[in-house]
Amino acid sequence: MFEVLFAHIEEKVTLTDKEKLAISEFFTFKKIRRKQYILQEGDICKNMVFINKGLLKSYRLDEKGGEHITVFGWEGWWISDLKSFLQQIPATLFIDAVKDTELLVISREDYEELTLAVPVMNRYFRILYENSLVTKDERLISLNRYTAEEKFQRLIDYNPEMIQRVPQHLIASYLGLAPATLSRIRKRLGSGK
Amino acid sequence: MFEVLFAHIEEKVTLTDKEKLAISEFFTFKKIRRKQYILQEGDICKNMVFINKGLLKSYRLDEKGGEHITVFGWEGWWISDLKSFLQQIPATLFIDAVKDTELLVISREDYEELTLAVPVMNRYFRILYENSLVTKDERLISLNRYTAEEKFQRLIDYNPEMIQRVPQHLIASYLGLAPATLSRIRKRLGSGK
Repeated sequence: MFEVLFAHIEEKVTLTDKEKLAISEFFTFKKIRRKQYILQEGDICKNMVFINKGLLKSYRLDEKGGEHITVFGWEGWWISDLKSFLQQIPATLFIDAVKDTELLVISREDYEELTLAVPVMNRYFRILYENSLVTKDERLISLNRYTAEEKFQRLIDYNPEMIQRVPQHLIASYLGLAPATLSRIRKRLGSGK
Repeated sequence: MFEVLFAHIEEKVTLTDKEKLAISEFFTFKKIRRKQYILQEGDICKNMVFINKGLLKSYRLDEKGGEHITVFGWEGWWISDLKSFLQQIPATLFIDAVKDTELLVISREDYEELTLAVPVMNRYFRILYENSLVTKDERLISLNRYTAEEKFQRLIDYNPEMIQRVPQHLIASYLGLAPATLSRIRKRLGSGK
């Protein structure tokens, strides 16, 4: 049950068996079905989740009900509304399952406790967040500076796994493009899936 | 020399005198003058800097030489091209001084060594990066969703210190607005400085 999580942590830091046991005690295993929510706008994001298997998406809804996807998460990813989770204030994001998904769930309080009980987890999260900051910087640049075609090309170059794992209409939403626009771009780039 | 840094760290974690001494040994003090660069696009970002005093900005240049400001840093802030610093690859950012500035400088290698020598620094950076991720999320939303006037209003609401500390023409660049547009907005909102 914890293999994916431990493998992910051990890409960044070394864990003893004792630390693994301690870590496992802070998480709850949960299965959710396709289309099931784990967070809705306005609720407080009580948990951060680690994805064992499956696919989740986080998104905002605009006034017309349009989805603006901010993040996809598959096995080995963490997902939450970070501001809502850290500050325990109402969320601005929805998070739901694109496929049946298996999660390891940790509460706000236990997240803090975990880093006190197993200090090496600070090192793990520090490195994880360094990487997230770099990714978010690239997203900021990409949204501001590139054409639709360049955005998709950058996704192919820097995040090919997303293209394998995520349905095309959701990638369009992630890039802020109409699905038809993305279809045209894929044809032009000759990368039909 | 280390008062500002220690105060900033101790907002998040507790330090012993021994830890303070150890931390101080990883940093070099540096003064730079207004308009002096600490990083140019294409160079490798060898250092992360902590600002003791003064004001720095990081920015990209577009093809026409226009500055697109990504971050302002004043006392108590860290600044770097994080991707270039972490991966030791060429930078995409420029960083220079808006005013005469005093810095504490740490190299990539020493940054890693510091977290090994003083493990509580992982906790400090973990919490620091959590906050940065929240800020970047808000910037992403803001750039995508708000009008010029709303962007400036959000700055007043969420980052009033920036308005106090940063010259108006640089705030315009940060918001992606022409200086004249920002002047008009300020007049309309009745917040002349």
